Amino acid sequence: MAKILESVPNYSVGNDERIIEKIVEPFNQHDDVKLLDYSADPDHNRLVVTNVGSPEGLYEATLESIEIAVERIDMNEHAGEHPRMGAVDVVPFTPVRNVTMAEAVELAKKLGKEAGNKFDLPVYLYEEAATEPGRENLAEIRRGEFEGFPEKIAKPEWKPDFGPDKVHPTAGVTAIGARKPLVAFNVNLRTDELSIARDISRKVRHSNGGLRYCKAMGVDLEDRGVVQVSMNMTDYTKTSLQQAFELIRVEADRHGVEIKGSEIVGLVPLNALIEVAKHYLKLEDFSVEQVIENRLLEDL
Amino acid sequence: MAKILESVPNYSVGNDERIIEKIVEPFNQHDDVKLLDYSADPDHNRLVVTNVGSPEGLYEATLESIEIAVERIDMNEHAGEHPRMGAVDVVPFTPVRNVTMAEAVELAKKLGKEAGNKFDLPVYLYEEAATEPGRENLAEIRRGEFEGFPEKIAKPEWKPDFGPDKVHPTAGVTAIGARKPLVAFNVNLRTDELSIARDISRKVRHSNGGLRYCKAMGVDLEDRGVVQVSMNMTDYTKTSLQQAFELIRVEADRHGVEIKGSEIVGLVPLNALIEVAKHYLKLEDFSVEQVIENRLLEDL
Repeated sequence: MAKILESVPNYSVGNDERIIEKIVEPFNQHDDVKLLDYSADPDHNRLVVTNVGSPEGLYEATLESIEIAVERIDMNEHAGEHPRMGAVDVVPFTPVRNVTMAEAVELAKKLGKEAGNKFDLPVYLYEEAATEPGRENLAEIRRGEFEGFPEKIAKPEWKPDFGPDKVHPTAGVTAIGARKPLVAFNVNLRTDELSIARDISRKVRHSNGGLRYCKAMGVDLEDRGVVQVSMNMTDYTKTSLQQAFELIRVEADRHGVEIKGSEIVGLVPLNALIEVAKHYLKLEDFSVEQVIENRLLEDL
Repeated sequence: MAKILESVPNYSVGNDERIIEKIVEPFNQHDDVKLLDYSADPDHNRLVVTNVGSPEGLYEATLESIEIAVERIDMNEHAGEHPRMGAVDVVPFTPVRNVTMAEAVELAKKLGKEAGNKFDLPVYLYEEAATEPGRENLAEIRRGEFEGFPEKIAKPEWKPDFGPDKVHPTAGVTAIGARKPLVAFNVNLRTDELSIARDISRKVRHSNGGLRYCKAMGVDLEDRGVVQVSMNMTDYTKTSLQQAFELIRVEADRHGVEIKGSEIVGLVPLNALIEVAKHYLKLEDFSVEQVIENRLLEDL
């Protein structure tokens, strides 16, 4: 049974098609790596690449891609809406099949070490790969961004995990880590009152007393005439999609508002949906081995 | 993208381990066929083998397996609880990925023709592969069983689709066909009154005015102290698991009885569960392409 991980590296480029193609190329050149998707957003000036593959294949392809990005992107000329600190801003690895989180962490550390030494690039390990609690949260690492990092990196508490103690002059700094699969799950409410979506978001999200593995914010979908509770489910194995959905339903009821529908943005692991089906059908003793497609995957 | 079908041949043998091993062997000997499961039931005196694979691989493996069963099983010595008419009682093909029903029907016809000619075996095409409406229902074909077939096969309306117009002296006759994937879905009720499960089964099943692609019967699970609505969902793309579940809930309510839980017996296609999740979460614009595991399968 093959080991399969996902990687979703983010690069600080959104406009230059030539550079984007070069950066993506290595993920098409390894037999055991599959490029699932890449999207470059000119407003954010950011490229997000989604791949799955073997640990070895993803390691090699990502290292090659980092080298290209470090060579071609000059952060001194970069501006965009999304906060960023380096040419290769962040590289998360996520276990998909037959891979433990410990193995994903090992892969992140190995890549961080080699990229740091080879490209003179300061690397911070984050989330499950973090070497201290203050570095788990990517937003904390990124605070100050590229422009503020020469000052930040000089502080002892911000000494990088790998690479030099000095910002790369053109490529800045990079975060590499391991995390659980993240599901972007949005619930739309049949109202145009943004305050209701905001109120419900506070009820459902961890930071205000809600569900442990749920981040949420209220969003106005003006062109659709509805508002949305926009969520990141950061560990669906512990906080399920149906928990968030049912809690939103209860809170929406209180406002006299209906749930219009929901959406999953991007990719979702099969098991997150199986858990939903198991919950609502009250399935007993169900094993994912009963899903035909899962049996086919055993041979990969 | 590889074409993948499922086949679930049923053989009239349940006790003789040597014969069972021989019959199953071909499904382990083809690179592009995967034996998922086989179970032999001594009471029913019947062997059910579940395989997935390419059209070509399944065709070859099934033909080899039929030859072995025809040679080794003598229906004159066969007795068991399950109705049966041949050594190879029935061979259904089901599309799984990138295969149309028309292709599954073609495969059934090709196999029926070759097996009929090669092994002097009368073959009836059934369900989606049936050549006339009276042969769609397997139970209609099988009526009379092995012992009654010499008389039945002589009637013009029961002339076999392939092979001789005479029952094979030891192997009887065989049905080969194509059908939608079948999901065995049972809902358990928190009561020990069998009459309630029977009443609800009549409400939910097609034959008494219920859901089009649902067969159901009431079953007493004495050792668990509950009763069960035991269902075969014969086309989950048209009659979904959640429709049956919700209809049972409504009927159970009327009896003042709760649903205790449900179970899926054996294999289930991924899409049947995704439809459940989509329904209860009110997912809009969701594509199965968003399921990571589905993307991995594209490379098979």
